[in-house]
Amino acid sequence: MTGTVGTATVMGAGAWGTALAKVLGDGGTDVRLWARRAEVADTINTTRRNDDYLPGLILPPEVQATADPAEALDGVNTVLLGVPAQSLRANLTDWAPLLSPDATLVSLAKGIELGTLMRMTQVILQVTGFDASQVAVLSGPNLAIEVAEGQPAATTIACTDSGRAVTLQRALNTGYFRPYTNADVVGTEIGGACKNVIALACGMASGIGLGENTAAAIITRGLAEIMRLGMALGAQPATLAGLAGVGDLVATCTSKQSRNFTFGHRLGAGMTVAEARKAGEGHVAEGVASCQSVLALATSYDVEMPLTEAVEQVCHEGLSVIEAIALLLGRRTKPE
Amino acid sequence: MTGTVGTATVMGAGAWGTALAKVLGDGGTDVRLWARRAEVADTINTTRRNDDYLPGLILPPEVQATADPAEALDGVNTVLLGVPAQSLRANLTDWAPLLSPDATLVSLAKGIELGTLMRMTQVILQVTGFDASQVAVLSGPNLAIEVAEGQPAATTIACTDSGRAVTLQRALNTGYFRPYTNADVVGTEIGGACKNVIALACGMASGIGLGENTAAAIITRGLAEIMRLGMALGAQPATLAGLAGVGDLVATCTSKQSRNFTFGHRLGAGMTVAEARKAGEGHVAEGVASCQSVLALATSYDVEMPLTEAVEQVCHEGLSVIEAIALLLGRRTKPE
Repeated sequence: MTGTVGTATVMGAGAWGTALAKVLGDGGTDVRLWARRAEVADTINTTRRNDDYLPGLILPPEVQATADPAEALDGVNTVLLGVPAQSLRANLTDWAPLLSPDATLVSLAKGIELGTLMRMTQVILQVTGFDASQVAVLSGPNLAIEVAEGQPAATTIACTDSGRAVTLQRALNTGYFRPYTNADVVGTEIGGACKNVIALACGMASGIGLGENTAAAIITRGLAEIMRLGMALGAQPATLAGLAGVGDLVATCTSKQSRNFTFGHRLGAGMTVAEARKAGEGHVAEGVASCQSVLALATSYDVEMPLTEAVEQVCHEGLSVIEAIALLLGRRTKPE
Repeated sequence: MTGTVGTATVMGAGAWGTALAKVLGDGGTDVRLWARRAEVADTINTTRRNDDYLPGLILPPEVQATADPAEALDGVNTVLLGVPAQSLRANLTDWAPLLSPDATLVSLAKGIELGTLMRMTQVILQVTGFDASQVAVLSGPNLAIEVAEGQPAATTIACTDSGRAVTLQRALNTGYFRPYTNADVVGTEIGGACKNVIALACGMASGIGLGENTAAAIITRGLAEIMRLGMALGAQPATLAGLAGVGDLVATCTSKQSRNFTFGHRLGAGMTVAEARKAGEGHVAEGVASCQSVLALATSYDVEMPLTEAVEQVCHEGLSVIEAIALLLGRRTKPE
């Protein structure tokens, strides 16, 4: 059964949360956008802009911001969770008493929780006690600024309840943003959680001077190891061949704007991890942390992820990029 | 059962044939390299170089060139066919009487034969009358010049006879070139045949000013339609998620060196097909022709390929790139 989302709430006014609030508003849905800081909410309501994250973009009148979670969530049946992966548990624990019991919760964060090695929907289910059919994932090759500019983009919306998936699809389907539905929640989550590690590897290869064949081989063999992990967790390979898998992986690995690619490039060009961090003004690419959680998850399921392992060894165990490449090329050749 | 290739012959001294002769030679195999023109064969034998195709690269002593097909093929059990897709039938018809009856024939050309709509291995089987177990395909994200330079690259070798596949894998496995075996000949062929059309679409989007989300969506939805065609022809989806599918597609669609991307970019920037041809000094990108044969093949199997269809309409029916994008975005959204 499908319906309409009614009013939707986006929790988190970062770049992606704000961009999706704009998409929903452009599609005619009334949107409440929760911002952590009251001044951000005020600025959005008075100027229609969120210049810290999406400079120059104008939000439609359907979007109303608030810094009060209770106001944001009151009586709302569709909630998009736009906070960072490692903050989701703490935030959602605060918000859980405010949620409508039948609400659809949409996970936007990409990552594996450190320590627990849980996917984001697992965290959501554990914290809220909701039924799995109420939890959806939105993931795909979606740079927030390009979506906010109205450039054509596609994404995957996964939910085990196809009615909820189609309801979300309709609300988010605009002239420029095309959501495809999928019942495979695990598969839709796992690509986004693993892609940054492979982007680090692509950056390293580029930094050391290697060209397009090497990049394509890293992306493809990276996809193969992500698929192995996904299948061990119950994902469908077709999902990982789709927008949330291949699409997001390709976008992240080939974007010169990607922080992970850039960080890897610096390591390939000869910097140490500390030097690369310094060059990035203290910012560490997300893949530097997530290579550890992804590898731990893979190990616990007895899945081989040689590229992820090589990245982990470069980032955390002092292996040089040249040694990592030699290690990968020295592996026994096998069936694809 | 696996053995050694003994002496191998590469028929065709273009960039890719010459690069693979170098790979085989580097791996210790004696190689005969057939060149159409006697002066090319002479130059290779005297200078160890084939500067027209691989400027500056030195071939190992294991590679001996000849312009005589009989000399090239005499007593040889491994033959790599490195002539263009649309010339393969005519060449192979001439060479068929010279082939050892038990030889392994390896198809290197990427394409669908115009008129017959046959894949390259189908042409080979029809012309030679060989058993399907004797015919292999080598395909992957392999820019010839990068392979010849010894940059790390991976490829797929597909053959229904796993013994022959492993024999080829061993002969071609060097420190820098990694072949993965696969039993899925159709899947390994179809990615290479379709990728140039999708690269044209990526170029068009880039030429009109669209960014990374759009490119990733085109690549992923392009992969989805290639998979639909492949599965209708009997291919395995996993093959198309591999090096000969995703890998080659990503490399072709993201390479600014790619002739197809560049041609599409010119169309997106507002040139007509005739103007884009002129700007390319008379060269027409391969995808301009192959969008027609791929679309005809898809139609005959009742497979929808909306991106290929849009490219065909832009290249041959006067549709503008803007109209093509509007057409694609206006399609009904559906499950992934």
